[in-house]
Amino acid sequence: MNGFQYYTPTKVVFGKDTEHQAGALVREFGGTKVLVHYGKGSVKRSGLLDRVFQSLDDAEIPWVELGGAVPNPHLSLVHEGIDLCRREGVDFILAVGGGSAIDSAKAIGYGVRYDGEVWDFYEKTAVAKESVPVGVILTLAATGSEMSNSSVITNEEGWLKRGYSSDLGRPKFAIMNPELTYTLPEYQTMSGCVDIMMHTMERYFSHEMNTELTDHLAEGLLKTVIHQAKILQKDPQNYEARSEVFWAGSLSHNGLTGCGRAGDWACHQLEHELGGMFDVTHGAGLAAVWGSWARYVYRDDVSRFAKFAVNVMDIPYDYADSEKTALEGIEALECFFRSIHMPTSISELGVELTEEQIQELAYKCSHMDKRTIGGIKKLDRTDMEHIYRMAR
Amino acid sequence: MNGFQYYTPTKVVFGKDTEHQAGALVREFGGTKVLVHYGKGSVKRSGLLDRVFQSLDDAEIPWVELGGAVPNPHLSLVHEGIDLCRREGVDFILAVGGGSAIDSAKAIGYGVRYDGEVWDFYEKTAVAKESVPVGVILTLAATGSEMSNSSVITNEEGWLKRGYSSDLGRPKFAIMNPELTYTLPEYQTMSGCVDIMMHTMERYFSHEMNTELTDHLAEGLLKTVIHQAKILQKDPQNYEARSEVFWAGSLSHNGLTGCGRAGDWACHQLEHELGGMFDVTHGAGLAAVWGSWARYVYRDDVSRFAKFAVNVMDIPYDYADSEKTALEGIEALECFFRSIHMPTSISELGVELTEEQIQELAYKCSHMDKRTIGGIKKLDRTDMEHIYRMAR
Repeated sequence: MNGFQYYTPTKVVFGKDTEHQAGALVREFGGTKVLVHYGKGSVKRSGLLDRVFQSLDDAEIPWVELGGAVPNPHLSLVHEGIDLCRREGVDFILAVGGGSAIDSAKAIGYGVRYDGEVWDFYEKTAVAKESVPVGVILTLAATGSEMSNSSVITNEEGWLKRGYSSDLGRPKFAIMNPELTYTLPEYQTMSGCVDIMMHTMERYFSHEMNTELTDHLAEGLLKTVIHQAKILQKDPQNYEARSEVFWAGSLSHNGLTGCGRAGDWACHQLEHELGGMFDVTHGAGLAAVWGSWARYVYRDDVSRFAKFAVNVMDIPYDYADSEKTALEGIEALECFFRSIHMPTSISELGVELTEEQIQELAYKCSHMDKRTIGGIKKLDRTDMEHIYRMAR
Repeated sequence: MNGFQYYTPTKVVFGKDTEHQAGALVREFGGTKVLVHYGKGSVKRSGLLDRVFQSLDDAEIPWVELGGAVPNPHLSLVHEGIDLCRREGVDFILAVGGGSAIDSAKAIGYGVRYDGEVWDFYEKTAVAKESVPVGVILTLAATGSEMSNSSVITNEEGWLKRGYSSDLGRPKFAIMNPELTYTLPEYQTMSGCVDIMMHTMERYFSHEMNTELTDHLAEGLLKTVIHQAKILQKDPQNYEARSEVFWAGSLSHNGLTGCGRAGDWACHQLEHELGGMFDVTHGAGLAAVWGSWARYVYRDDVSRFAKFAVNVMDIPYDYADSEKTALEGIEALECFFRSIHMPTSISELGVELTEEQIQELAYKCSHMDKRTIGGIKKLDRTDMEHIYRMAR
């Protein structure tokens, strides 16, 4: 087991009607003037935003609002938020929505307390020293951003999608009412389930074998999401299933499922470029590339892929041929993705990649040939091209 | 799934040589004058205390020390620590040791910032409003106090053992170097393993069945400890096994394994009275009463005990007779306890209970007939007497 730090200070308040605690929680964490940041109009139409404003009013906390965060949230809106916070003297940002609103809120928080250009952090040319604190009212089980230290922003100039991680970005609190996710369309729900699984699998696929507890936690989380996603497919307003997936989303990305080992993260990097260039839904994009990645790399750690097959996908272990077991596990997960109507190829995303686009994606993903990605197998630009081609 | 709060702000710094970060971490969390609080001389003899003092010196943080925390830590030493902190202007307490030093440190922290008698909190006649922050250098995998909100103190007047829980008591950081646990004798190591398991099982035995993720996490943790305890029995300096048990200890009691359901906690209450009256090792005391408790209550939730049998103890489910499965699970865990030389009766603790003592224990445990304990089955004073008698 590798040494590690585990730091998850976010206070989770989970259950029905918890959004009414927003004002009290902002106060508990010292906020006196709030930016309420959200995405499209759905939180407005559902009445959620009104309940949040009411809760802030009840706590006598003044607020301003900024909507418009889109999936793969844009840098231009972050700039707008920074200006607004400075103008209004905002000292707490309350993100209402899913990963887009939260990641955008984190970026705004970094930017307000930084004299330079906030994109510096995402380009890794600067490190955030302080931040306006962020709280979350979560409406989507997917990114885990409500407890994570990470935020991903897309710069419209060049459509570069880049992540930045800092403990300063971990939200102070996360209000999680599973009922708020009832109205999500199936495609969004299942993309979220894939994203949750992939946050765990990126950490699970590692050469470090001495992580029994972490493996058990990861496997249990994956089995839960696989089971509950199927329930949600038939019964999207099932409170228990929504609850399981909601909580799994937070635990998948707060660090718990990675303690004691380095992760892989190649699929996330491959998908980030896809998402930056084509604006695909993150979870669906991950499902589209995972199988190709797995088939390209599994020979570098057959035992780990076999363990995944047995402990997560319930494949019987073939003692004479562990490679067969490993491959059956990959097939089983792709089969599951298909069963929840998730793509297992990029063309199913509605994107027909040309050879030039494949080369451009790989060139960008390799940061102009300056980095490799992945842990199970280190992937250079040529490897990336192969995987994009396999996934096409 | 019930609504819940999950709040684990403790920063865990896990791995070899991490004790050298003590000074930097105290500084990170704002400490300027430290009380180093520890138990018996073992941390001194091992040289750990010198490394901690050196780390504080390197960070230019002045400190005072107070040793003497004993298992089932005493209120009198808490009073001594409160006086010392006030006299010396201490604003951070660094506990070096296991649960005894940590629980004692938490109590001192509450007491320093309270005008009344600190025992009030443990008698539940007052609620702590503030506390001197506590950091931890852990040397024993057992109580989980390094991330938990709880602290248990024994009042020598009447030998009452009482717990108090407050988020104020959650340590700011926990330094966890598994090597520090190498020299623990087998009895202490295995008592710790039982304590870790029981923190999870007290949460696991619940009538709430809609907790798939939480159940998976709990079951994985229990299986890990059962597996690694056997390794440690043969190879006490196995770094990987020490690491697994160490980390399991923290996760067993930080709230994770209880999210979404109410726990039982009857065994802890039954053992607390034993520990208060006879000064037995906490984990061993829990092992001594668990089987009797389980046999007394399992009919109130056969399905939960059967799930435990199958998912934790690897008993094949008997579809025609789930009660048989449930009982086989109880037997299997008792068998495991015996295999690691833990007691499954109170007499094996070296305590031969008289009928009068049984009545006194139950009377105290029922808070003079004023409360019931337990969740699977509510236990009154008469039930408690029965269980003590069965466990004799």
